[in-house]
Amino acid sequence: MLLVAGVDVGGTNIEVGLVDDGHTVRERAKHDTPAQSPHKIVSTIVKLIEGLDGVPSAIGIGIPGVVHNGRVLEAPNLAGWDESFDIVGEIRHRFGVPVALGNDANVGLLGEWVAGAAVGADDVLGVWMGTGIGGGLILDGRPFVGSRGSAGEIGHVVIRAGGALCTCGRRGCIEAYAGRRSMEAAVTKMVAAGRHTSLFEIQQQEEKSTLTSKVWARALDEGDELAVELFDAAVEAVAVGIGSAINLVDVQLVVIGGGMAEKLGQDLVDRIERAARPWILHPSPKLKFVVAALGDDSGIVGAASIGRARLLDV
Amino acid sequence: MLLVAGVDVGGTNIEVGLVDDGHTVRERAKHDTPAQSPHKIVSTIVKLIEGLDGVPSAIGIGIPGVVHNGRVLEAPNLAGWDESFDIVGEIRHRFGVPVALGNDANVGLLGEWVAGAAVGADDVLGVWMGTGIGGGLILDGRPFVGSRGSAGEIGHVVIRAGGALCTCGRRGCIEAYAGRRSMEAAVTKMVAAGRHTSLFEIQQQEEKSTLTSKVWARALDEGDELAVELFDAAVEAVAVGIGSAINLVDVQLVVIGGGMAEKLGQDLVDRIERAARPWILHPSPKLKFVVAALGDDSGIVGAASIGRARLLDV
Repeated sequence: MLLVAGVDVGGTNIEVGLVDDGHTVRERAKHDTPAQSPHKIVSTIVKLIEGLDGVPSAIGIGIPGVVHNGRVLEAPNLAGWDESFDIVGEIRHRFGVPVALGNDANVGLLGEWVAGAAVGADDVLGVWMGTGIGGGLILDGRPFVGSRGSAGEIGHVVIRAGGALCTCGRRGCIEAYAGRRSMEAAVTKMVAAGRHTSLFEIQQQEEKSTLTSKVWARALDEGDELAVELFDAAVEAVAVGIGSAINLVDVQLVVIGGGMAEKLGQDLVDRIERAARPWILHPSPKLKFVVAALGDDSGIVGAASIGRARLLDV
Repeated sequence: MLLVAGVDVGGTNIEVGLVDDGHTVRERAKHDTPAQSPHKIVSTIVKLIEGLDGVPSAIGIGIPGVVHNGRVLEAPNLAGWDESFDIVGEIRHRFGVPVALGNDANVGLLGEWVAGAAVGADDVLGVWMGTGIGGGLILDGRPFVGSRGSAGEIGHVVIRAGGALCTCGRRGCIEAYAGRRSMEAAVTKMVAAGRHTSLFEIQQQEEKSTLTSKVWARALDEGDELAVELFDAAVEAVAVGIGSAINLVDVQLVVIGGGMAEKLGQDLVDRIERAARPWILHPSPKLKFVVAALGDDSGIVGAASIGRARLLDV
């Protein structure tokens, strides 16, 4: 039984798991993501892995950034990264085992593909609905990352050029309507303009520092008018963008994951599917929309799977 | 020297060429596309091939429709087609050589990839600007057609949900702004509303039955205000859609072809590139936009190349 460490570096937490041949997470550990430097992130990863009971034969890491040939080319949500920092070399040097690196959203879809909702599908679009909107692609039976490792950015497919301001500075991306950060900004603006909502009260009751997926889920459940209105727009934006994506890459499976999908489940997926179908030019009779099956673990399992694949290379 | 017949079935013409190992078209023939039935199209193809001087060792056909596993699943612009009509079987039976079938836009990009502007590129988006807006993809060093053969429909990537009415019945597709059929409908509407344009005069002078690419090119050259206005919107729509596509599939090369590109050349491509770049999240330093190199021949050369590939299978 080979154990592989899967490392999921997020903007908030670093999660590490020891994953077995059956893609089961045997043990896990978690720590806040240090904000100072890539070196601090490396030392946190090292400590988390050292704290695990088993010894990994390989390590895979998913990171929120553009990853190409084992290097992080851009990581706007992590402090101090540039192409010169060799995270793979640093971790490999520390543990003496093969280390693989991938983009977090791509790696998350990989987790679903090897052990979750996308097992056996040759052409898959993954859409992660959280603070932002991330994504990944499996095409022709293999993970697809594009010519420079930045494929899968479904959140920045434009659905209304010149429309709502996105976190990326452009106007009209899916993320501008459906990313939690954008949605919270819209709520704040609308409240300042005199609209009423229970969203911030729910946030306080839940003791959250932002409008989390749980807060949104409760507000929707309680029929909060503003929450319903913004969420309808979010569903429509995601649906139009998925329609565009399917017209371009003709996948047979759409996996919806992330915090929003975890809280709202197949209901959310069904709503997105109903809204997306009218935008698809040649809908395949086999096309399915499903909710991610591994939840938070998709990142760890996917990261472990790229580490495991590295064992075959050496 | 093996000669392969490449057949490019369009809504207006069927073009056939005899293509050699170096992807050079040695001989060509052309006939109006019969409107009656798929059987008539087959007999026209047969006559065109029989009329050629050389005998083909294989035949490749590009057709405007959804093609999967050698069958035409949908061909809305050709009369009477459904999945039960076996064009590959009919043509193979007549000539006794291997026959391959593909979508016309995908096959056109293949022509550019084997012998034109996309030679050597691993990840390519082809955009064909004509009556409609078609497209194709090369991903990870191979032609990509999707799970059901309908990938590459860049014309139906939505850039403004709820915007201009598209020929497909949806609102806001690229084709609604940049396809010649849509643009002509917009001109007609604007003229009825009192706007002036020289487009229809130019059309008469050029003795064309529609606003062809040549007519548009002249009107733009002469600074016709309405033509310039609509064309600016077309360039912007194509640019936004290409930006979305690159965010999703991260290609390193965009090839622009079709009648509009043939008439307007690299100038059009440069305009599209300038307008597209601001929409790209992680632009690759290697990213290039180029005009198709084979012109009308891309369909014949690409079709011949899928026929030629079939020789390796038997």
